[in-house]
Amino acid sequence: MGVDPGLTRCGIGVVDQDARRQLTLVGVGVVRTPADLDPARRLLGIETGIEEWVLEHRPDAVAVERVFAQHNLQSVTGTSQAAGIAMLVAARHGIPVVLHTPSEVKAAITGSGRADKAQVGAMVARILKLTGPPKPVDAADAVALAICHLWRGQATNRYAEAVERARRQQTSTARATTSRRKP
Amino acid sequence: MGVDPGLTRCGIGVVDQDARRQLTLVGVGVVRTPADLDPARRLLGIETGIEEWVLEHRPDAVAVERVFAQHNLQSVTGTSQAAGIAMLVAARHGIPVVLHTPSEVKAAITGSGRADKAQVGAMVARILKLTGPPKPVDAADAVALAICHLWRGQATNRYAEAVERARRQQTSTARATTSRRKP
Repeated sequence: MGVDPGLTRCGIGVVDQDARRQLTLVGVGVVRTPADLDPARRLLGIETGIEEWVLEHRPDAVAVERVFAQHNLQSVTGTSQAAGIAMLVAARHGIPVVLHTPSEVKAAITGSGRADKAQVGAMVARILKLTGPPKPVDAADAVALAICHLWRGQATNRYAEAVERARRQQTSTARATTSRRKP
Repeated sequence: MGVDPGLTRCGIGVVDQDARRQLTLVGVGVVRTPADLDPARRLLGIETGIEEWVLEHRPDAVAVERVFAQHNLQSVTGTSQAAGIAMLVAARHGIPVVLHTPSEVKAAITGSGRADKAQVGAMVARILKLTGPPKPVDAADAVALAICHLWRGQATNRYAEAVERARRQQTSTARATTSRRKP
């Protein structure tokens, strides 16, 4: 599952890889929160939305776009927070989290780290045999992240194994948190 | 309750105000996560730690430091994410969240938005009749945030009222999320 983090539109893409390494698009969508909502409640909305996707699809891994400097610091803050919540939800369910930079994703999908969004969208459609790129663009980016993660899997397997080793401990922590949360 | 967000040290301070506007320090501490831990699991640790404080003290409001540009973007990302988790936990429990900038806090506590950390710590000790500033400095900053919020209350009451109006809806959303979280 790929997550293109954002407060206004958080893209989600779920891709399956079969034994012959064929990729299939399982689900794609966007978690939205209204810009005029209190920021804390927007984060709660993002958490609820991402958690629904995680519980529905139970992904083996969650790939989140690594946040980099942008012109607007307020935007970095919100994007970082949405990314953090995706990471938090995955960790709570014992699912390994991997961060990929935008240029890693572009390079994995198109062969060039400087590809534009249209090229990435077109290649995503081609790889998954779709009639066109997933829309909106945040959703296409999330699907690209998921593909990038599957194709770069070799390099990240060691990481996933390390996470797996820590998983039992993590799951028990998450359960303790959950039980305290009951009203 | 004030929260000075950070991944390595997240300061927490709880201050009570009685009917005569006298302030008392109820609790102060730091939620820590190891720097060598997987980032997603660090966020889970921050969530668990903050939630323990919220459940123990049931604060009327959570004041979080507003994150601003720093030299190191990686640090902005981590600080933003820790702040986001404090906001998320408060929202989940229906507690109003207010953000204060560092200079608002300094101005409220010392009269100058440019006061240094030692001045803020000394004033916190004086206001709360402590023998010295709370330690470490993240904890003192969190207590300062809590005091700032109480003293600036007039300006933020309208905000709290707006949040209160939305509270029932929010609580029902949080419960729906909780029930899905049960294993």
